[in-house]
Amino acid sequence: MNRFTFLFLLFFPVLGVAQENAFAEDAFFIRKIYDEALTRSRCYDWLNFLARRIGGRLAGSPQSAAAVEYTRRLLDSLQLDSVWLQPCMVPYWVRGDKEQVRIVNSQKMGTIELNALALGNSVGTGPMGLTADVVEVKNLDQVDSLGEALRNKIVFFNGPMDPTQINTFNAYGKAAGQRVWGASRASRYGALGVLVRSLTTRLDDIPHTGSTVYEDGVTPIPALAISTRDAELLSRLLREHPVRVFMRNTSQSLGEVPSFNVIGEIKGSEFPDEIILVGGHLDSWDVGAGAHDDGAGCVQAIDILHLARLMGYQPKRTIRCVLFMNEENGLRGARAYWKWSDEKGEFHMAAIESDRGGFTPRGFTADGHEEVFNEKFRKVIDWLPLLEPYGLNFRKGGSGADISGLKSQKGLLFGFEPDSQRYFDYHHTPIDGVDVVNKRELELGAAAIMSLVYLLDKYGI
Amino acid sequence: MNRFTFLFLLFFPVLGVAQENAFAEDAFFIRKIYDEALTRSRCYDWLNFLARRIGGRLAGSPQSAAAVEYTRRLLDSLQLDSVWLQPCMVPYWVRGDKEQVRIVNSQKMGTIELNALALGNSVGTGPMGLTADVVEVKNLDQVDSLGEALRNKIVFFNGPMDPTQINTFNAYGKAAGQRVWGASRASRYGALGVLVRSLTTRLDDIPHTGSTVYEDGVTPIPALAISTRDAELLSRLLREHPVRVFMRNTSQSLGEVPSFNVIGEIKGSEFPDEIILVGGHLDSWDVGAGAHDDGAGCVQAIDILHLARLMGYQPKRTIRCVLFMNEENGLRGARAYWKWSDEKGEFHMAAIESDRGGFTPRGFTADGHEEVFNEKFRKVIDWLPLLEPYGLNFRKGGSGADISGLKSQKGLLFGFEPDSQRYFDYHHTPIDGVDVVNKRELELGAAAIMSLVYLLDKYGI
Repeated sequence: MNRFTFLFLLFFPVLGVAQENAFAEDAFFIRKIYDEALTRSRCYDWLNFLARRIGGRLAGSPQSAAAVEYTRRLLDSLQLDSVWLQPCMVPYWVRGDKEQVRIVNSQKMGTIELNALALGNSVGTGPMGLTADVVEVKNLDQVDSLGEALRNKIVFFNGPMDPTQINTFNAYGKAAGQRVWGASRASRYGALGVLVRSLTTRLDDIPHTGSTVYEDGVTPIPALAISTRDAELLSRLLREHPVRVFMRNTSQSLGEVPSFNVIGEIKGSEFPDEIILVGGHLDSWDVGAGAHDDGAGCVQAIDILHLARLMGYQPKRTIRCVLFMNEENGLRGARAYWKWSDEKGEFHMAAIESDRGGFTPRGFTADGHEEVFNEKFRKVIDWLPLLEPYGLNFRKGGSGADISGLKSQKGLLFGFEPDSQRYFDYHHTPIDGVDVVNKRELELGAAAIMSLVYLLDKYGI
Repeated sequence: MNRFTFLFLLFFPVLGVAQENAFAEDAFFIRKIYDEALTRSRCYDWLNFLARRIGGRLAGSPQSAAAVEYTRRLLDSLQLDSVWLQPCMVPYWVRGDKEQVRIVNSQKMGTIELNALALGNSVGTGPMGLTADVVEVKNLDQVDSLGEALRNKIVFFNGPMDPTQINTFNAYGKAAGQRVWGASRASRYGALGVLVRSLTTRLDDIPHTGSTVYEDGVTPIPALAISTRDAELLSRLLREHPVRVFMRNTSQSLGEVPSFNVIGEIKGSEFPDEIILVGGHLDSWDVGAGAHDDGAGCVQAIDILHLARLMGYQPKRTIRCVLFMNEENGLRGARAYWKWSDEKGEFHMAAIESDRGGFTPRGFTADGHEEVFNEKFRKVIDWLPLLEPYGLNFRKGGSGADISGLKSQKGLLFGFEPDSQRYFDYHHTPIDGVDVVNKRELELGAAAIMSLVYLLDKYGI
């Protein structure tokens, strides 16, 4: 007995004949999606080009323009109903010289170089760098307790990601505040700069960048991430004696420049005004190649349209692939998209974002406007028997930054959820390359998303 | 509301008060197992030593002796009730010189070297190698159809692993016959040697070894694996013109030598005669470092006893860690263990084998004697609400080669089942090193196994 017969028999007693037939047809079609994705997908090749030939592509950079052009051509090659670039203005930040962070007064080891990366949006220290005593804190609240004691100091945020969280995104969510808001908070009390422990559960020498945000009214001060092993070292030395650190970075913001979201769609044959969006973000950090974050999500989104074409699938509803610009340090592409879509009076019946890496699929988080969410979520739960054989599940939870602004259109928002264990080994680092993305895992992700798109398109919600 | 309260409330309506309390206690203890495993496990360090400092450790090799000694000392350091070496005789096979496989008559490209590895147990070609025309087949049945046409030929088994199987072990199971039995089958018809397509869904240059078996009465002929990309090349050339190949290997079997299973146990306080076995196999192929196969399973098995000690857990039943010798090319350690255990009249209430890599846990397969299996399996299904929060499930299916012979004792046999997508990228290759094992994934595996051990120990079956 094969798995379809089994599923079929399993549901036979509770379904009417029409439903049985629909179930069998859906099971068959989803199996075919997986067969196609695992044998004819091109998404790994596309990722290879994006990561190796273009590389890191921070919004506003020449590489981000190359990524726009490459993916536009890719979409063009799929013979879609329309492909277009949607303009947006993005902040253009540049890292500058290789960062220097060094302990200058270690009593045992002399000068010690630390592995560091400026946080995105950080201002520079000035060409001469700055030197100051270090004060360690574990979180933002401790900054407020210490207050004026931080004046003219370098504040060292050393709150580790909790390794006991099974879903690493939960641990990230709890620890990321110090990276995003640490510089602003420390600046309130006159600190000169901040160092932030890299956001990973690993103990290694790789610094992780990521955005920092300056609140209105605070003096921007330089903010750099250091590797977890260096954070442990610095903390140990601080328990022994006062530590002075020299830090230097020449990062700067170069104002706003024009850029684009890249969009392609297949028009629905019956309900063209009901849009199913699949998307990822095309920009990445400048270090590394942005393979998991979020080249993977982009090529999976493109692959949905490619798989539809391969399979000769004509959707009833409009399937739109959106590659958002500037998720990492501004979300300006997404904001432009939401505004434009709202102004056109569009209805996104569903949106699926893939921005948690190209790992083995586990399912989808679902979110939506409170007025409609519970009722709509109940509907998709009915599809679980079709998705569970592929290891997929649904759970309530945030969908993704780039589609979050579509909530007001009262459709359903999904976040594609792959296995989370390895994501923060690579996230925002120089080692987020295509060599740490597994081809099958990436393809299974495309198949999982396409299966959900198929059910959304066929049944609506 | 945290997840325990949630689970607790979820089950409140259907459980009696005593059961509620037990459930809450179990949920708490399992959470504690995960906390310990994710913060205090040493299993990644042990694997690092086994893989980097000892390396490939085929049964009978000096490295296998080093692995026996290292793991015995590890177990000794845990202050168990007993640690011992169980003698067994194992076949000692050596690979010899670096293998050579080359196409000698390519019309366009001249001589072409192929990436090859002798299959384990293979005889050698003799020092001068052999040269013959190649005949391609897709499976064993085609050998029988071709019959005498294979005389004095090299038979090239080119059956690919089916990439559309979601669980890669299913695809492996279907394709492995050509590697195991191909040489014997081809030899029946007078073939001189065989080349076998490597067992992986990847297209790359890495040959995968693995055992071949010579059936009684056939003339042993040399059997070598070639990489999948080279298999594609060879197949393409064969469609264009007859292809002659030179192959040379100097592998040989050096008879039987003494070796050992490594065993340690904590005696049960109430039911010492009910044994819960956790195990992996200590031998690996000689190429690569045997990190996923099966260093991972060994260090996880050791970690069960380590975690018990860390947590001050005194089991009611006997928990025994067994590191089996010679799984890869003979299963002689396992056979010695089964015989010894049966002769002592032991009862393995349960046995859990970890031999599918150190990836993110998905659950356990379960198997057992047909007289008792269904009833016993129903019992463990009741534990799912405690395990599902950690992404674990049970399904019926084979447990593992090393514990399969314990079925006659009528306990339950489990195979630990991690995510299977990446396993055959590394399986039996030079790249199966500790760098492709993720620390968290490995630790989560130890926690998953320990959680099952805890429930087995507490409730029995």
